[in-house]
Amino acid sequence: MRIARFSLDGTVGFGVVEGEPSTSEGPVLDIIKGHPFAEFERTGHKLPLNKVRLLPPTLPNKVVAIGRNYAEHAKEMGNEVDETPVTFFKPSTSVIGPGDPIAYPSFSSELHYEAELAVVIGRMCKDVPRERARDVILGYTCANDVTARDVQRTEKQWARAKGFDSSCPLGPWTETDLDPADVGIMCTVGGEQRQLGRTSEMVRSVEDLIVHITEAMTLLPGDVILTGTPAGVGPLHVGDEVAVTIEGIGTLTNKVIKRDY
Amino acid sequence: MRIARFSLDGTVGFGVVEGEPSTSEGPVLDIIKGHPFAEFERTGHKLPLNKVRLLPPTLPNKVVAIGRNYAEHAKEMGNEVDETPVTFFKPSTSVIGPGDPIAYPSFSSELHYEAELAVVIGRMCKDVPRERARDVILGYTCANDVTARDVQRTEKQWARAKGFDSSCPLGPWTETDLDPADVGIMCTVGGEQRQLGRTSEMVRSVEDLIVHITEAMTLLPGDVILTGTPAGVGPLHVGDEVAVTIEGIGTLTNKVIKRDY
Repeated sequence: MRIARFSLDGTVGFGVVEGEPSTSEGPVLDIIKGHPFAEFERTGHKLPLNKVRLLPPTLPNKVVAIGRNYAEHAKEMGNEVDETPVTFFKPSTSVIGPGDPIAYPSFSSELHYEAELAVVIGRMCKDVPRERARDVILGYTCANDVTARDVQRTEKQWARAKGFDSSCPLGPWTETDLDPADVGIMCTVGGEQRQLGRTSEMVRSVEDLIVHITEAMTLLPGDVILTGTPAGVGPLHVGDEVAVTIEGIGTLTNKVIKRDY
Repeated sequence: MRIARFSLDGTVGFGVVEGEPSTSEGPVLDIIKGHPFAEFERTGHKLPLNKVRLLPPTLPNKVVAIGRNYAEHAKEMGNEVDETPVTFFKPSTSVIGPGDPIAYPSFSSELHYEAELAVVIGRMCKDVPRERARDVILGYTCANDVTARDVQRTEKQWARAKGFDSSCPLGPWTETDLDPADVGIMCTVGGEQRQLGRTSEMVRSVEDLIVHITEAMTLLPGDVILTGTPAGVGPLHVGDEVAVTIEGIGTLTNKVIKRDY
């Protein structure tokens, strides 16, 4: 099931996406009553997907991100895979939705894309045992761990390099039925393929990451885990359209803009 | 003015602290109507401070923390002062209030205290110019940037070492009238002094840190900036009572416990 968050005429809600873009009528959103993190039901009141604005599919309290979780990407950055996963935060203020602009930050001149599988947490949890890890997951979405690579090199902790406003595009919706063990993940810029990998190449699985993170901290419903990026990272320029596609989920597209104010 | 957040008989509110602990009647809380981040008034309905439970004085969406902002502490850790401030996040789930227990994390065997001046942000802001920095501040409180020092050494990013549950005690209240330029800051463990410094020793001022952080990201009302710790950091053990005292604000006390569940 694909659960999208949307706005229309000033109201915000959640809906279940039905149908594929390829069908003649196009996909629709079946508006839900209740909240996707708790009990909910479909109302049967349907909106054409192209009439609504899609929002970030979740409003995370925190995004916990993992670095160097694909060996080939670690190698291209000149790093070994660390004994324990590199773990950092992106704040809620960095989150944007599908179609929202990525604002090129004033303090960087080397912005990079990083396509990642995002895990949307469904339950408040701490100290999750490996065999229960799947139980705390609501579903999966696409993420772009947008990075100011020059700032990342000069600042030892990455709060600014990876936490600036609009550095965490999420979307287009949360897919609840995905098996994340081996799906394709791709990044294109201006339609040209830049990253292509499979989640089976991840050094640590989604389950392992949930154990690792919740050993230290409580995750809340709506929180997000970014699972690392495959090889092929590279620059983004003002005007670029960057798209992250994950097999079984969909495509998250954002345009890079320059703010003049 | 000292604005405390409290709970009593299941309700939560804010109040203005009046009187000093040394007076015969003891301090009282004048309950406020409205919210301290917007317009509010004192109701004149007063509660003895010792009858309420003090809560964290703010519920930050994010805590932005600064490392190596006192040269003597940087030296004791074997570090140079970096060209740009070391900037990292502590998540909202790490925040506890005065008197709340610090739970010794299972994945560490070297917990350290770090006494810090905390800035409580009063307004949503981005790209704050230096001369406007004071305008976005509601006030100041005491913080303990509790750190799993062994984990900090082995994990390159500090999300787990400094972001685990209960690693961010804040309190006892927000002092709105402090000049943060030169106040004393002290940490004691079991009543023994361990850290003693002055905010005048900070490498970068509160104003500089607000410029640096908001160049990258939006701060929200209630967000907190931790301004770094003076020299003298050292271990905490289960059973220790650790207290952070800042001149003109008050004392934040927490006990270290071990959770058996």
